[in-house]
Amino acid sequence: MKKLKNDIGEKSIAFHKKHSGKLFTSSVLPVKNKNMLSLVYTPGVGRVSSIIAENPKLARTLTWKGRVVAVISDGTAVLGLGNIGPLAALPVMEGKSILFKELAGVDAVPLVLDEKDPKEIIKIIKAVSPTFGAILLEDFKAPECFEIEKELKKILDIPVLHDDQHGTAMVVLAGLINACKVTKRNLKNISVGVVGAGAAGTAITKLLLASGIKDIRVMDRHGVINTKRTDLNIYKKELAKITNPKNINGEIKDGLENCDVLVGVSGPGNISKEDLKNMADNPIIFALANPIPEIMPYEAKKIGATVIATGRSDFPNQVNNALIFPGLFKGMLKYEGLKITEDLMVAVAHSVAEIIKKPTAQNIIPDVFNKNLVPTIMKTIGKYAKK
Amino acid sequence: MKKLKNDIGEKSIAFHKKHSGKLFTSSVLPVKNKNMLSLVYTPGVGRVSSIIAENPKLARTLTWKGRVVAVISDGTAVLGLGNIGPLAALPVMEGKSILFKELAGVDAVPLVLDEKDPKEIIKIIKAVSPTFGAILLEDFKAPECFEIEKELKKILDIPVLHDDQHGTAMVVLAGLINACKVTKRNLKNISVGVVGAGAAGTAITKLLLASGIKDIRVMDRHGVINTKRTDLNIYKKELAKITNPKNINGEIKDGLENCDVLVGVSGPGNISKEDLKNMADNPIIFALANPIPEIMPYEAKKIGATVIATGRSDFPNQVNNALIFPGLFKGMLKYEGLKITEDLMVAVAHSVAEIIKKPTAQNIIPDVFNKNLVPTIMKTIGKYAKK
Repeated sequence: MKKLKNDIGEKSIAFHKKHSGKLFTSSVLPVKNKNMLSLVYTPGVGRVSSIIAENPKLARTLTWKGRVVAVISDGTAVLGLGNIGPLAALPVMEGKSILFKELAGVDAVPLVLDEKDPKEIIKIIKAVSPTFGAILLEDFKAPECFEIEKELKKILDIPVLHDDQHGTAMVVLAGLINACKVTKRNLKNISVGVVGAGAAGTAITKLLLASGIKDIRVMDRHGVINTKRTDLNIYKKELAKITNPKNINGEIKDGLENCDVLVGVSGPGNISKEDLKNMADNPIIFALANPIPEIMPYEAKKIGATVIATGRSDFPNQVNNALIFPGLFKGMLKYEGLKITEDLMVAVAHSVAEIIKKPTAQNIIPDVFNKNLVPTIMKTIGKYAKK
Repeated sequence: MKKLKNDIGEKSIAFHKKHSGKLFTSSVLPVKNKNMLSLVYTPGVGRVSSIIAENPKLARTLTWKGRVVAVISDGTAVLGLGNIGPLAALPVMEGKSILFKELAGVDAVPLVLDEKDPKEIIKIIKAVSPTFGAILLEDFKAPECFEIEKELKKILDIPVLHDDQHGTAMVVLAGLINACKVTKRNLKNISVGVVGAGAAGTAITKLLLASGIKDIRVMDRHGVINTKRTDLNIYKKELAKITNPKNINGEIKDGLENCDVLVGVSGPGNISKEDLKNMADNPIIFALANPIPEIMPYEAKKIGATVIATGRSDFPNQVNNALIFPGLFKGMLKYEGLKITEDLMVAVAHSVAEIIKKPTAQNIIPDVFNKNLVPTIMKTIGKYAKK
């Protein structure tokens, strides 16, 4: 396995070297003569600028603004690599940018920031925002990511989404809807143990609550989050209030007792087989740490799980944010003026789940190349826009 | 004339509407299957990020950084339109971005900033700079543009150029070199009157001094800049020290007395025919206000000028920044680690002038589509890099 991964790594390095990265820019038409120059540049462009100055809304139709997304990161929480900084995060953001184009035909550019202070990051993103039609935040670490996203959603007039929070949450909810169908559970009645209270764990918890699930227990490295704990930051205090209805106090194994579902978004080695043994029968296991899941699928099977999801492409049921963000942002650009609310995210997750007509243990989440994904998500957003 | 311009304006609006602006992004290769996905995105991209984290220099070859320019503006001094703000400046920046690609094969993206404070602008551009291989500043107003460019050149490890200052200055110097050949003057011995002491006027003055010209008089709306004036900001005080060797005190007509060259970079209506009548015989007139020159070519001819340049494409000898920036930045990206110094800019201007083997009054500046421009500029930078 390690050898295979290294092979992919070396091939990827060679690919990036050959092409000097992955993303390029182009003109919509060739500019080969003075006539064309006068249309795209002076003197013609002066009129375009003038009418936008008079009516700023026209920027959406007369420039690329109406169709371009910024993929922004400070490089503090890059997939499995952690705080590696903006330059090292750039290949990932360039990757997300080409996925926007390849999966949904949306133009996108990466923007990596040499800045760590959330207040400054908010100012910087606000300042560059006129250039773009929407902003996807990627790989900002918790808890800073919460403040950054919340404030930007408040002050900007374009859609903003922190993918590591809500992109992940939507795919998890979609997968869980189908996992419940496969295991004949009623979504709203399940009990869920979420291990990991960072960006993903917090957002997953809130979206599962918004979808009607009532019994969720969130666990961090010190155990189950509850209102008696005195070591919680403001974000975890909020989680303590809205989760854990039985007010369980204890370790991960206590939190998972009788749980129908484990959602692991922490890291390898944080959950033991012992922790899982008092879960409900035929538990649903989402072990999403990447690249090494908290529980390997063959171990999850040993404790009786049949529906197992990971973050990896080499196992069935990959939880991959790329399922959602291309279609979601294409829809948000089309239906201008909408906000990405919890209601909308729940609706998107349900519509993505429904793409799979007959879910099975091996097939609860659509493939990232599924042709129905983008149109389905856009249709959901369109319905929402009418309301 | 006005009708014709409006026609181009309306055609330009229709063009921008049809294409939703001018610039789009693409992937270097299609991403249609899981194998490709694993190379451009997880898990392969993790190795690329890892090796950049270990050796940040690799970002130049493994991401788009080594081949992409940011075209940044705050929209405070847009061509003939003034302070129209970031959104209205976006069509111009998108235009410059496609010219980069069409004229020199350089990838470029616009970035317009909703921020006016120079200190904040510097912080913002520094923060986004890891994303890019070079930065072209456009349409920042004076005097703020001086501080912004100077500080960014100091703190960033990538090339930075304020086009309205130095791009214009290089084209003016190139044109002036050939204008001197046509009128049989020795460049270093000419006297030059520069009317307008903003971004362009200041940079032109400094570059002409760097090229060996000694007698330059700079004029603003209050007359000739000299060391006796008490109304000068720090930038004009510096000009007073390094120009006006005869220490002329007076109005524009006094400053232009016996001048071989007028360089107008102010605006229409600032220079009268009366102001020009005591210039040297057969003066060289660069009336660069756009879209309406300070002196129309037919009026310049009346006072005996044969070599006349404007900023317009519908007269001979267009001074157009697009002559220089595509090739200059292509060269700076290729010869990594160079700075854009005055020496380099003088050398670039000379090499651009020499593209025209036999200059005439109607032909002192190469056409923007001249196939020799980019290779010539790059060759000059290559020679400079060896030194």
